[in-house]
Amino acid sequence: MHRKYIDNDVGIVKTSKQFFKGTLQLDCGVTLENYEICYETYGKLNKSRDNAVLVCHALTGDQHAAGKYTEADKKAGWWDNMIGPGKPIDTNKFFVVCPNNLGGCGGSTGPLSNNPETSRPYGPDFPIVTVRDWVESQESLAREIGIEQWAIVMGGSLGGMQVLQWTIDYPDQVRHAIVIAAAPRLSTQNIAFNEIARQAIRSDPEFHGGHFYEKNVVPERGLKVARMIGHLTYLSDDILHTKFGRDLRKGKIDFGFDVEFEIESYLRHQGESFVGRFDANTYLLMTKTLDYFDPAASYGGDLTKALAKCNSHFLVLSFSSDWRFSPSRSKEIVRALLENNLDVNYCQIESELGHDSFLLPIRQYHRIISAYAEQVNISK
Amino acid sequence: MHRKYIDNDVGIVKTSKQFFKGTLQLDCGVTLENYEICYETYGKLNKSRDNAVLVCHALTGDQHAAGKYTEADKKAGWWDNMIGPGKPIDTNKFFVVCPNNLGGCGGSTGPLSNNPETSRPYGPDFPIVTVRDWVESQESLAREIGIEQWAIVMGGSLGGMQVLQWTIDYPDQVRHAIVIAAAPRLSTQNIAFNEIARQAIRSDPEFHGGHFYEKNVVPERGLKVARMIGHLTYLSDDILHTKFGRDLRKGKIDFGFDVEFEIESYLRHQGESFVGRFDANTYLLMTKTLDYFDPAASYGGDLTKALAKCNSHFLVLSFSSDWRFSPSRSKEIVRALLENNLDVNYCQIESELGHDSFLLPIRQYHRIISAYAEQVNISK
Repeated sequence: MHRKYIDNDVGIVKTSKQFFKGTLQLDCGVTLENYEICYETYGKLNKSRDNAVLVCHALTGDQHAAGKYTEADKKAGWWDNMIGPGKPIDTNKFFVVCPNNLGGCGGSTGPLSNNPETSRPYGPDFPIVTVRDWVESQESLAREIGIEQWAIVMGGSLGGMQVLQWTIDYPDQVRHAIVIAAAPRLSTQNIAFNEIARQAIRSDPEFHGGHFYEKNVVPERGLKVARMIGHLTYLSDDILHTKFGRDLRKGKIDFGFDVEFEIESYLRHQGESFVGRFDANTYLLMTKTLDYFDPAASYGGDLTKALAKCNSHFLVLSFSSDWRFSPSRSKEIVRALLENNLDVNYCQIESELGHDSFLLPIRQYHRIISAYAEQVNISK
Repeated sequence: MHRKYIDNDVGIVKTSKQFFKGTLQLDCGVTLENYEICYETYGKLNKSRDNAVLVCHALTGDQHAAGKYTEADKKAGWWDNMIGPGKPIDTNKFFVVCPNNLGGCGGSTGPLSNNPETSRPYGPDFPIVTVRDWVESQESLAREIGIEQWAIVMGGSLGGMQVLQWTIDYPDQVRHAIVIAAAPRLSTQNIAFNEIARQAIRSDPEFHGGHFYEKNVVPERGLKVARMIGHLTYLSDDILHTKFGRDLRKGKIDFGFDVEFEIESYLRHQGESFVGRFDANTYLLMTKTLDYFDPAASYGGDLTKALAKCNSHFLVLSFSSDWRFSPSRSKEIVRALLENNLDVNYCQIESELGHDSFLLPIRQYHRIISAYAEQVNISK
């Protein structure tokens, strides 16, 4: 199932940084000044500037969607199987842009950045941004790069929510929208899982109310538990059974609290490796961004009305075993789009890999994206 | 849906304590000496001693299944809606016994008890017990009380696992077995949720490797997160939606980390009230007991073989929206029982209340238990 990292990858990449002198009026009321967005690009923008693809990252993603920073890197970008020459989003045809969202920990202005008011990192004082704020900042970035209309805006999970928001806020700047494993808003259960993760982080004594940078510590224990909770909800019960079952590390029960079942070892590892790569304040902030997303709210809960001004072509994809954003949630989006007489392709992909499917090179999934992207017209 | 606490309850009850001089050889290899079991009884044992019902408690339960300790008590026992005069388990007919399991925190020998070897509480050194160990200790209790055969052994969730183990280990001492919202063993996902809860507790700095009693502290933060995780898995997505939806405490988003959504308030409250009533070492231990339960393991995974010696009549119940122990898990038990040509009644009860349903006075559920219990023959 997993592809090898081979010649047809985008190769060595680097992150660019765009500085914005202007201000960004955030939904929370705060005005952000002098902010920066880190982003990567793959492929070349054509002369007509009509082959650009915006990739929106999910909760724990960043701008590093494809390629490697050095030959020695063990891991490529998070969507390396999707983006590259000859891959579903073919960089021989498209110019791909992937920004790190505001509030992120990939270098864009966020909790780790200097707060001009205090000359210390923002930490917990970085304003909670919304998906709408992200779209605004991405639109500013598009203008800087010189892109007036995206050929495709695409993303999975929280990334899919950004896609939807783009088609609402800038209907004429998105020719094609690919919304993967997303939902028009979180369910109560989704919010509850986020809240437990937040409690785990915020109750860690090393969180220090979010000002842990100054203490040179990290709320490791809380962040680890938060990641374990999140990760578990990305996987289906079936794939857990297939991959780990009730296999015991030592072949027998130990009657103790060290790792006994393989699944315990796997989850602990997931938690530990996350601590080294992700910022606790960003995690808190982005779970809130997820909780708040609800474009229908301003229309009395009517999603059809919220999508009334959309003008893009849509590909909506879901995965059969995804219980975090189940196919029925994707269908809510499809229904509302169809009620607006929009062009919608929808497919539920058979996969036992749960919500994580959107990151994985599943044959049917990649073939559908390939076929869809192939028929997207661009100038020669 | 909720019944009022009315005249036909068992009234004021008290906990009894049974001391066992003998030894109990535990599955883990440890021999427990001089242990105690706390239990409650409701109703009267008849002359023929054939009207006794054993109630087995679940993960966070104890011996206080019905009634109140004083008139002033706000809450009655955890299964007060099930047990009492005129209730599904009618105490005018039956003599009900509910013990607190070994390792529990209701007064039976467990982590809070004195370790004779150190003259300090056992804490984390209390041996991890198995469902088989519990059945052994319950059987010793039955002998002390003078019960040679139970009219019914019943329980939900981890309680249902004890019922199943009873019918395997003492087939002729159980006339009727009522197995509710149970599974023949945990799924990988179930184990994973338990492991995350354990990590939350064990990584709390106030856990002190389990020796927190001596420090006069409680790993509150970890225990709270553990309970929030557990509790969330007991509820269905649907009931969360119905009860809380995306309702906001203050009617609008605050862009902060205080309680915003009603579900957050509810979960925090669940976590906090648990901290006051439950012991962290017991919680750790009992989640391990759950993980280990797998009667088919000694039969090459063949549940039918594991149940080959069973000789009881069975009532197996599941709840439609239970995703912790879903109906399909109950059906695994039913299939194995039927393959042994046993008498099995099975019903999946429609309920949107999730795993928690087994504790709640759902009309169809109570009517089925009433009808089943009514036809259980006892001497006059």
